[in-house]
Amino acid sequence: MYQDEFEIRTTGRGAYDLSGRIQDLVAACAVESGLCHVFIRHTSASLMICENADPAVMRDLEAFMQRLVPDGDKLFTHTAEGPDDMPSHVRSVLTQTDLTVPVRDGRCALGTWQGIFLWEHRTAPHTRSILVTISDSRPDSPGGD
Amino acid sequence: MYQDEFEIRTTGRGAYDLSGRIQDLVAACAVESGLCHVFIRHTSASLMICENADPAVMRDLEAFMQRLVPDGDKLFTHTAEGPDDMPSHVRSVLTQTDLTVPVRDGRCALGTWQGIFLWEHRTAPHTRSILVTISDSRPDSPGGD
Amino acid sequence: MYQDEFEIRTTGRGAYDLSGRIQDLVAACAVESGLCHVFIRHTSASLMICENADPAVMRDLEAFMQRLVPDGDKLFTHTAEGPDDMPSHVRSVLTQTDLTVPVRDGRCALGTWQGIFLWEHRTAPHTRSILVTISDSRPDSPGGD
Repeated sequence: MYQDEFEIRTTGRGAYDLSGRIQDLVAACAVESGLCHVFIRHTSASLMICENADPAVMRDLEAFMQRLVPDGDKLFTHTAEGPDDMPSHVRSVLTQTDLTVPVRDGRCALGTWQGIFLWEHRTAPHTRSILVTISDSRPDSPGGD
Repeated sequence: MYQDEFEIRTTGRGAYDLSGRIQDLVAACAVESGLCHVFIRHTSASLMICENADPAVMRDLEAFMQRLVPDGDKLFTHTAEGPDDMPSHVRSVLTQTDLTVPVRDGRCALGTWQGIFLWEHRTAPHTRSILVTISDSRPDSPGGD
Repeated sequence: MYQDEFEIRTTGRGAYDLSGRIQDLVAACAVESGLCHVFIRHTSASLMICENADPAVMRDLEAFMQRLVPDGDKLFTHTAEGPDDMPSHVRSVLTQTDLTVPVRDGRCALGTWQGIFLWEHRTAPHTRSILVTISDSRPDSPGGD
């Protein structure tokens, strides 16, 4: 099992594709088959697996979330950090804090249209910590062979 | 660790119970205790663990999702594949792309009323790939004993 | 890999912090690094990782869910167990039945503001079973050293 942490500096609300970075970590471990676990250590940004080809998908997801959990919603009392504070927690609870993706043939076995995204929910830039744990199905094999 | 992929041919929107198929895979591996990871390689169909006894639960879940994310919603611009295209991505993001279930006594330790379902969100039939990875807590035991 | 089950007696709808109990299980296993998987064996209570400092966050989450999936919603036909029956299934499907948290330095590597919560969705008290599976990244190490 391999464990590594990295940081992403976001520029505010939106989706950031982590797929390349995570595939690189899997390749660096030389794990042929197993599981790759991704964890975000925050409660106002989250993870998701989503369509990675058409940028309109993320724009539509943002529009959907802004309708469902509007910034400044009168319903919320936890507003110390601003109108996007509590909506960010709700969005995080409705999506994922951790994801596990199977590893096969030395890569995350994502479908053709799947990408792994960090979803920043705060409107201001933030530094986000991602902890990746990769399990090898054949830990005793030389070079993952 | 055992890894296997299978396909489900859906007949369109709705829930498909995978529990039997996944329990069979766990049994075939002779894993006594461990974890069973299930991954769907798509972004317009998802996974969920849900009540498995009363078919009205799934009808009500469908009705809820159709109210929350209606087909043809004017909010959406990603509509190339039709009015159910973007709603399928939203439904997938709000549910699960991967699930992990504990294995105990040689079976997925689901609660009495829990089933593992594929939720097809597209209205047309699709072929969906499911990748299952089963980890054995005692990999060196003869016959999982 | 270590597996343990415990029960939580809820007093009805609301969030119950499991973080201390789960950290204790990780400590008892003397696992230095690995993964901790948490599974709830029910379909009307769920798990979430959420902000653990300000009680207003949970009150706001409850208010949000009650607006999104109101008890007694006319949309629902699965009402045998009362007006909170079907809303509890919907809330469970929109949140998590299982979570995996990385273990590092002998503890769940939660962020500063992250707690692991059981979210009881039924209004009446219930007994809920939680199954925890902890994987050790170095299973052959003496004392996890």
